[in-house]
Amino acid sequence: MQSYNDYLTQHHDEFIEELKTFCAQPSVSATGEGMAEMAELVRQKMVGLGAEVEMLNIGAGSPPVVFATLGQGDKTLLIYNHYDVQPPEPLELWESPPFEPTIRNGNIYGRGVADNKGHLMGRIQAIRAWQATMGELPCRIKWFVEGEEETSSANLEPYCLAHPELLQADGCLWEMGNVTEAGDPTLYLGAKGMSYVELTVQSLKGDQHSAFGTLAPDAAWRLTWALSTLKAPDETILIDGFMAQVAEPSETDLTMLASIPFDEASMKARFGVDKWVAGVSGFEALKRHIFQPTCTICGIESGYTGKGTKTVLAAKAMAKVSFRLVPDLKPAVVVDLLRKHLDKHGFTDIQIEDLGGEYPAKSDPNAPIVQAAAAAAQQIYGVAPIVYPMMAATGPMWPIAVAHDIPVVGFGMAYPGIQIHAPNEHLRLADYFKGLQMVGRFLQEFSK
Amino acid sequence: MQSYNDYLTQHHDEFIEELKTFCAQPSVSATGEGMAEMAELVRQKMVGLGAEVEMLNIGAGSPPVVFATLGQGDKTLLIYNHYDVQPPEPLELWESPPFEPTIRNGNIYGRGVADNKGHLMGRIQAIRAWQATMGELPCRIKWFVEGEEETSSANLEPYCLAHPELLQADGCLWEMGNVTEAGDPTLYLGAKGMSYVELTVQSLKGDQHSAFGTLAPDAAWRLTWALSTLKAPDETILIDGFMAQVAEPSETDLTMLASIPFDEASMKARFGVDKWVAGVSGFEALKRHIFQPTCTICGIESGYTGKGTKTVLAAKAMAKVSFRLVPDLKPAVVVDLLRKHLDKHGFTDIQIEDLGGEYPAKSDPNAPIVQAAAAAAQQIYGVAPIVYPMMAATGPMWPIAVAHDIPVVGFGMAYPGIQIHAPNEHLRLADYFKGLQMVGRFLQEFSK
Repeated sequence: MQSYNDYLTQHHDEFIEELKTFCAQPSVSATGEGMAEMAELVRQKMVGLGAEVEMLNIGAGSPPVVFATLGQGDKTLLIYNHYDVQPPEPLELWESPPFEPTIRNGNIYGRGVADNKGHLMGRIQAIRAWQATMGELPCRIKWFVEGEEETSSANLEPYCLAHPELLQADGCLWEMGNVTEAGDPTLYLGAKGMSYVELTVQSLKGDQHSAFGTLAPDAAWRLTWALSTLKAPDETILIDGFMAQVAEPSETDLTMLASIPFDEASMKARFGVDKWVAGVSGFEALKRHIFQPTCTICGIESGYTGKGTKTVLAAKAMAKVSFRLVPDLKPAVVVDLLRKHLDKHGFTDIQIEDLGGEYPAKSDPNAPIVQAAAAAAQQIYGVAPIVYPMMAATGPMWPIAVAHDIPVVGFGMAYPGIQIHAPNEHLRLADYFKGLQMVGRFLQEFSK
Repeated sequence: MQSYNDYLTQHHDEFIEELKTFCAQPSVSATGEGMAEMAELVRQKMVGLGAEVEMLNIGAGSPPVVFATLGQGDKTLLIYNHYDVQPPEPLELWESPPFEPTIRNGNIYGRGVADNKGHLMGRIQAIRAWQATMGELPCRIKWFVEGEEETSSANLEPYCLAHPELLQADGCLWEMGNVTEAGDPTLYLGAKGMSYVELTVQSLKGDQHSAFGTLAPDAAWRLTWALSTLKAPDETILIDGFMAQVAEPSETDLTMLASIPFDEASMKARFGVDKWVAGVSGFEALKRHIFQPTCTICGIESGYTGKGTKTVLAAKAMAKVSFRLVPDLKPAVVVDLLRKHLDKHGFTDIQIEDLGGEYPAKSDPNAPIVQAAAAAAQQIYGVAPIVYPMMAATGPMWPIAVAHDIPVVGFGMAYPGIQIHAPNEHLRLADYFKGLQMVGRFLQEFSK
């Protein structure tokens, strides 16, 4: 595949400029900004590869899925990506504007460059390089590019469960993946699920002078008290019945875990902390990170949050709470347990809005697609990949693949410092181009 | 005083227009907006009354105090007002813009119209009416109009304690006051104090993907847990040593309380609640309202608070917490107790910024100025006034008057529905003009 790699080198600058066009287009599924424009950009790129492209309407209010089919062969590879990104806020912490992709110190910065426009564009460029240097693709590709991954893919699950024939494949390449800080390859075979809720309370008709705090119920306090029943300061999730549904890792899981290097010190330095929560460290911390659920207050707001003081008693309060789910927690069950828990603890006044969920997913570590990815990684990076039985992040791996018994593998061009979902999201350019080599080699190994 | 009252009637429309000029000028001490312009408007009005006016610089960063002296006589009346207002947010809940004073249904709406630009302007107009119809004022007036009452008058206390001669008087008329829903007069003889703090925590260098909620400390959770140690869901303030400093009401206090009508049903309807907090009702509710301290979350913010979902682990969280203080709680002591409490409960990571405080104040119910106000109220409103030993709200009554043994009375033209500190703040115009009559009669009674 020398000519393939040479092509990547020759097109280095052009590929970076092309990547910038994806990242310069806002596509924030949480607000709807730029979604139609971004879907069209993706469609054009797929057409450029010679793909047949359908824009799937998967449900009311959902941005279209760009569904592309291309190539021929005995094997069928399902590729999953998404073209939406997280909101860019807080804007003031970006060193360059989130939608003006910028090269600095060998990195490319911009919202979505890692998660996962770089991965989507990288695969497009890798296939183009294959076609230019080796001709026909070695397998059939079904490419499913959705537009609401960052908002929990609300309509995806019913659509995918109703259209298994569309997705049928020998294996699924997941949206993105990491190398280590040192640049060594990793694979992952599963993903946590998610339940995301918005809790609101209205305690009064309208805001009042805080002198009435003697008598009038305070929305901010109601919410604070309700939240404090969900998780203890020692990080124990207290929702009745929640932890009972968390499965213990299997022996195979623990064997995989034991071979995962965990550079705690650099991770702590990156976060600016000197210890982890819940008193864990070393292997216990890694095990917790991969196999325990979370309960995170992603946002909270009530009353006056401007400069200085305002002596107001707030009528309304709101919190956004996300749960990362491990087997066998299910999103609908979590919302149901939460409602019962709040009611039991006297918080019937707290409203729950279900903003979406994902099943957790774990895939077969012995599947051919996993072996193909491992072989490709060994060849490109010169070392055997580190294999994660599950990643700590979330995606719709269950409805896309695991529910249809399609084995999944994820790998990619990110690294632990990419600032995913945060200001100054970036990729290292060297990782990007190594990632393009990896995609080509993986296609070859997968199609053998 | 027939000619005095006739003058008020003749100048009705002109007085309303003049009041609007005060309310149209923003003067938000929390942000600094319009403070210099408002101070100058007040100065011009005082000069128009023939007063000698000094603009007092009471400390770095404070807006000037407009200090006016006028009139001659054996008695000296100190009047306290302020020309700043609360921030107008949330703007979307105003039916007419907060700084475009508007007449609707016999009311005048606008930020600050009740608290307390209407009261300040009403006294200016009352004095002008006196001068126009009865000539020389019957007493000497010292008028202290400050510009940061709504932000806890941070520099006022040291200035006032250092300049007792400036304030020396036979009695002090406080900034504002209420009539009842039915229009009956009330007096108050004290005010709660205040401690206002901003609590902040930074748990990480920067925001992270919420997948790291397994290991990385979460600022929103740290703040939620810390807050939940301050007050229990049954409304007990849990800060170690706080409640021990709350004095029981005296027999005189309870006698005054017993004669205060408490229209619980209409207050509940106004707030949109069917019961009070802490299980109180009737006399116990009134006693709690007047004689118990509060702990209110006036604002809280962390993470993503926009539309939809963002799966972020927030590095920073902030809460604004106010305490209304009753004797013998003191602001500096409260901040000190709070620090010790947070440390003791493991929240050394929560930073406290002291945004200002006020001492609570209680004044002598038998003072001549109280008798003068009661006599005037009886004459103008036709009934004996209801007397509150203390009001639930706060003002710098201690450094202005009580610390110098100057007895205090407050009365005015507000009513319980004015939406103080909230959207759609207003005064009933009928109350406004009755209030102007009351000021004239009070000057006469006070000077006897």
